[in-house]
Amino acid sequence: MQIAYLLYDRFTALDITGPHDVLNSVPGNEAIFVAERAGPVRNESDTLSLVADASIAEVTEPDVIVVPGGFGTRALLEHEPLLDWIRSTHEGTKYTTSVCTGSLLLAAAGLLEGAPATTHWLARDTLAELGAKPVPDRVVEHGKILTAAGVSSGIDMALRLIQVEYGDELAQAVQLGIEYDPEPPVDAGSPEKAPQPIVDLVTQAFEAQEAGQPAAQARPP
Amino acid sequence: MQIAYLLYDRFTALDITGPHDVLNSVPGNEAIFVAERAGPVRNESDTLSLVADASIAEVTEPDVIVVPGGFGTRALLEHEPLLDWIRSTHEGTKYTTSVCTGSLLLAAAGLLEGAPATTHWLARDTLAELGAKPVPDRVVEHGKILTAAGVSSGIDMALRLIQVEYGDELAQAVQLGIEYDPEPPVDAGSPEKAPQPIVDLVTQAFEAQEAGQPAAQARPP
Repeated sequence: MQIAYLLYDRFTALDITGPHDVLNSVPGNEAIFVAERAGPVRNESDTLSLVADASIAEVTEPDVIVVPGGFGTRALLEHEPLLDWIRSTHEGTKYTTSVCTGSLLLAAAGLLEGAPATTHWLARDTLAELGAKPVPDRVVEHGKILTAAGVSSGIDMALRLIQVEYGDELAQAVQLGIEYDPEPPVDAGSPEKAPQPIVDLVTQAFEAQEAGQPAAQARPP
Repeated sequence: MQIAYLLYDRFTALDITGPHDVLNSVPGNEAIFVAERAGPVRNESDTLSLVADASIAEVTEPDVIVVPGGFGTRALLEHEPLLDWIRSTHEGTKYTTSVCTGSLLLAAAGLLEGAPATTHWLARDTLAELGAKPVPDRVVEHGKILTAAGVSSGIDMALRLIQVEYGDELAQAVQLGIEYDPEPPVDAGSPEKAPQPIVDLVTQAFEAQEAGQPAAQARPP
């Protein structure tokens, strides 16, 4: 399969490199990083550039698209060149996928009207405003559309795609290859598990970042 | 803290972007991606470039270094320019860290002589040959040196660093921010958990890649 990984200004690097290192472990899969214009694209905290090797105009019939999130998402909710590409490639994809606030772009493109979908836990209201039905799950499947929750959940989403497309054994092999046997030293990975003061802290920090403050300055605590 | 993220030809993207998106969530932390020469650096499967914004000669006193793994590691085990930089920055770091086969570079630089350390489960013998004492744990702490196991384990290592340096609350906040609440659809993330045929499959695929075959062609099954 040809898998197109979308980049745009102020994306989150882990949102896109997580699925890439999972899906790219499958022999025969072709990876192509794309953006509106080819060249380096800066992440949300202005600390890292990933390179788009092609423009979206050059990649029109990928089998899979992966749309990451990031604090740059909201600036693109009416940006037709990108939404058009999502809409038109979706017609021919085998899987259309998103991570974190990437699902806001799928929704803005009209792909999630009335459909169950997930996103970063802090973006559920926005996802609903865009016409989707937010589900507080880590990975949500709706036909060929797979949406993942915040940032790190793209790894689980990509493993699930491999399981659906290729079966359990390949999913196991890829999981073992990237040694994905998580052991976080604390247990606060969802708003249900985290203490309320931590939830409040992160909420405030993210609201500051959405307002455009530099990421490294606005983040918790 | 200034955190230097090292890039080199044929690195693994998730090894370095995982810790970056964790450590970069801490306000005041400065991130700088470095390589022997500034500019785009290609990953192990020739599918993605990350940009080194500075050369290693320009970043001589970082507080933290993060050394990723990748199939390019073994070609660098006697590459003095890189080993010298690891050795000399280590003298002044608060934390010296690695992910996956990145620990082979720490060992080759002489930092792990007789010391407990971890690496990708398939590289434990090589790590021992380089003078370290391989431990089959996900994150191993030895003084200020933190080594992590394969690929995805860099996320746990970076969260542990935050916990040690800043305490539980900030580690919880960062974990919640990246919604790190893993739910892999299969349970084969370590050689102890995976069925033996899967372990054999991945072993063969990685040996083929170490021998220099293109990643996407040699990977399992």
